[in-house]
Amino acid sequence: MKILIKGATIITMESPEAIIPNGVIAVAGPRIVYVGKESALPGDFQPEKIIDGTNMAALPGFVNCHTHAAMTLFRGFADDLPLMLWLEEKIWPLEAGLKKEDIYWGTLLGCVEMIRSGTTTFADMYFHMGQAARAVEKAGLRASLSRGMIGTAPGVGAGELPPLEYSVEFAKKWHGAVGGRITVMLGPHAPYTCPPDFLRRVIEIAREFGLGIHIHLAETAGEVDDMKRRYGKTPIQLMDELGLFALPVLAAHCVHLEERDIEILAAKKVGIAHNPQSNLKLASGIAPVARLLAAGAVVGLGTDGAASNNNLDMIEEMRTAALVQKAATGDPQALPAFTALQMATVNGARALGLGGEIGLLKPGYRADIILVNLHKPHLYPRHDPLAHLVYAAQGADVETVLVDGRVLMENRKLLTVDEEEVLNRAEECAQRLVKCPK
Amino acid sequence: MKILIKGATIITMESPEAIIPNGVIAVAGPRIVYVGKESALPGDFQPEKIIDGTNMAALPGFVNCHTHAAMTLFRGFADDLPLMLWLEEKIWPLEAGLKKEDIYWGTLLGCVEMIRSGTTTFADMYFHMGQAARAVEKAGLRASLSRGMIGTAPGVGAGELPPLEYSVEFAKKWHGAVGGRITVMLGPHAPYTCPPDFLRRVIEIAREFGLGIHIHLAETAGEVDDMKRRYGKTPIQLMDELGLFALPVLAAHCVHLEERDIEILAAKKVGIAHNPQSNLKLASGIAPVARLLAAGAVVGLGTDGAASNNNLDMIEEMRTAALVQKAATGDPQALPAFTALQMATVNGARALGLGGEIGLLKPGYRADIILVNLHKPHLYPRHDPLAHLVYAAQGADVETVLVDGRVLMENRKLLTVDEEEVLNRAEECAQRLVKCPK
Repeated sequence: MKILIKGATIITMESPEAIIPNGVIAVAGPRIVYVGKESALPGDFQPEKIIDGTNMAALPGFVNCHTHAAMTLFRGFADDLPLMLWLEEKIWPLEAGLKKEDIYWGTLLGCVEMIRSGTTTFADMYFHMGQAARAVEKAGLRASLSRGMIGTAPGVGAGELPPLEYSVEFAKKWHGAVGGRITVMLGPHAPYTCPPDFLRRVIEIAREFGLGIHIHLAETAGEVDDMKRRYGKTPIQLMDELGLFALPVLAAHCVHLEERDIEILAAKKVGIAHNPQSNLKLASGIAPVARLLAAGAVVGLGTDGAASNNNLDMIEEMRTAALVQKAATGDPQALPAFTALQMATVNGARALGLGGEIGLLKPGYRADIILVNLHKPHLYPRHDPLAHLVYAAQGADVETVLVDGRVLMENRKLLTVDEEEVLNRAEECAQRLVKCPK
Repeated sequence: MKILIKGATIITMESPEAIIPNGVIAVAGPRIVYVGKESALPGDFQPEKIIDGTNMAALPGFVNCHTHAAMTLFRGFADDLPLMLWLEEKIWPLEAGLKKEDIYWGTLLGCVEMIRSGTTTFADMYFHMGQAARAVEKAGLRASLSRGMIGTAPGVGAGELPPLEYSVEFAKKWHGAVGGRITVMLGPHAPYTCPPDFLRRVIEIAREFGLGIHIHLAETAGEVDDMKRRYGKTPIQLMDELGLFALPVLAAHCVHLEERDIEILAAKKVGIAHNPQSNLKLASGIAPVARLLAAGAVVGLGTDGAASNNNLDMIEEMRTAALVQKAATGDPQALPAFTALQMATVNGARALGLGGEIGLLKPGYRADIILVNLHKPHLYPRHDPLAHLVYAAQGADVETVLVDGRVLMENRKLLTVDEEEVLNRAEECAQRLVKCPK
């Protein structure tokens, strides 16, 4: 399908200045073929569909670098609690009762929310990932999916293979599937739940099958202390020594870092998923993002799961990242608007190993495009669209969403999913889990 | 007019448990006359209008305790800059060019944005406040208005009286006007711009006319150092000594506080406007809200102006307040959802001297009510409406807004203001200011 988006303010994300007022984007099949002024659009481009971008900003869809989409089922179930009480008495008992259908409907609920707030790609780590893949296929989003693996106590869902076997079968079936929209990583949960021997086995398999790794690293001060006590080194240094960073790695959190950790993460081009709202809500801390960026690290943004956020809204996440970093560094120039947008788009793409494919509006890139309606009172006057997107916009301002050149939402109407059915089914799953976790 | 709101989940804000599923609220004229189950609604209540609250949460409208509404004109004009450069090279030159009509349209733009995100009352400090009052009257909101006064260099707008005289005339005309919707405070800007002699005169006049005081206090570490150098005491202790706190005071920011300051603020029942997003964005710091609350202080929430926020969205402000306080204290139980909601409603009302009138859904209180649409993917499943409002909702979820029993917005349609005209006129004012500040 050939689509022409007309009349939008195009934020290509190639540089802060690369903004094209009243520009056009031409899409052919899954890719962008032209971005610029309409006057220079090749005359032989004959669109089958024209999308009116008047009053809209067009930008690359957001890349949510770390979430557990099915945990939308636990949104608002347990808040304002200490971490271990939250996990042991609230989250884990419910997770133990999760059935395949819960993962499908919970992930689909997350997909609906993400489309509605402009996310086009997400990195997910959870269980029953075949169901998550089905939900992603149905919703039309792009995703990097990982089966979360606990090395110390490999929990297996009803009818599931052991985690590593499951992950291999899952990768064989889904890595590169649905036109490349789905990719697969291996998902060892974290150093404190996956001992070195287990991680060595994961690294071996990742190498054998050409897969990346999605892992939680240095989320809490307690984890760092624990690793130092057990292994005499920080989680980052331990992973480096094991050779993990020779592979493409997506490392969630990276909150508590020593100077040497920052050097390693930057040098090894580890993709970092910064999750500011979750880190604040669980009182984990504030990641040294300004220092990571100064060191040249690849830092994307994630929401984490809706149980600790409690939404999957990347506009909010950009805002929180930018605001908190200014206060944490004492410098109001830290993490300016364009940098926050880079983290939410092109840098997130790099963190997921999708650099060169998504994250910019540029010919040859995948047509993952969102239109944000700027004709809103909270986005007037029109001094600066970059500042408005980061500091003033909200998820509901996202009007239209394309992934791989396919329109998933147009003028706030979802086209791939029956939204009412998703809300009802997710509600049923959640109520059943709460009433009778097992 | 008699209005019945039916079928809503009623969050009265009297306690975390005081939630009435499928309840009704009866409104007669400007006040609430009944809140509860429909079965117990007095039979003689004959509504002229019924509002369907199915799928909605009904709660008291938000109280924005500190803003400069007309500064919406500067939204996104200057971000990511150091404070003094921001003020001296960007904001002040534009402010010097502000004309009466700018204040009217800028304030009205702020009012439109506030109605759309559920704010029903705001406390404003700026110039040309007669124009702000006209905008508030037009929009139908409730407001506490103050003419900002710089004692050291009393700037006077074209055709304006000197600040103190202006304030007195303004109070005579507007304090208690439009059915009590508008109240007036005196607005000495801050201790560093208003020397003790000026403040003594302000206190005298406030006493004479029975007015409260709206002032910025202890916003930055630099201000506290400066006051200590000049007067040998903190801004709070200086104000206490001058006798300011014998009057009703609304103190914005209160970020940098000593233990003794916290004791004074709590003992004197000073209304504190906590502005977390502005404090983060300008890298001012994080106010010790958990300690203030533990000491029994009256803490409300504000957005500050849109030049340093950059929106006037109280849902976001609640979320930021709650999340940041958890990280700042290292305690995920700090500032739980219900406390954030109290700050945004009933405690904000107390901070503005409007306790007993607004901030609760309770018979006898003013009918300042908002309906928030819970039938949104990011608010499913329905585990906990309090958590959803604070941690997951967004401004655009606010569906219907009443102030003094008058419907200002119904199903997202504004009823008091021509929104397109406001956007266009505000845009014109802003563009003129940017092109030719004087």
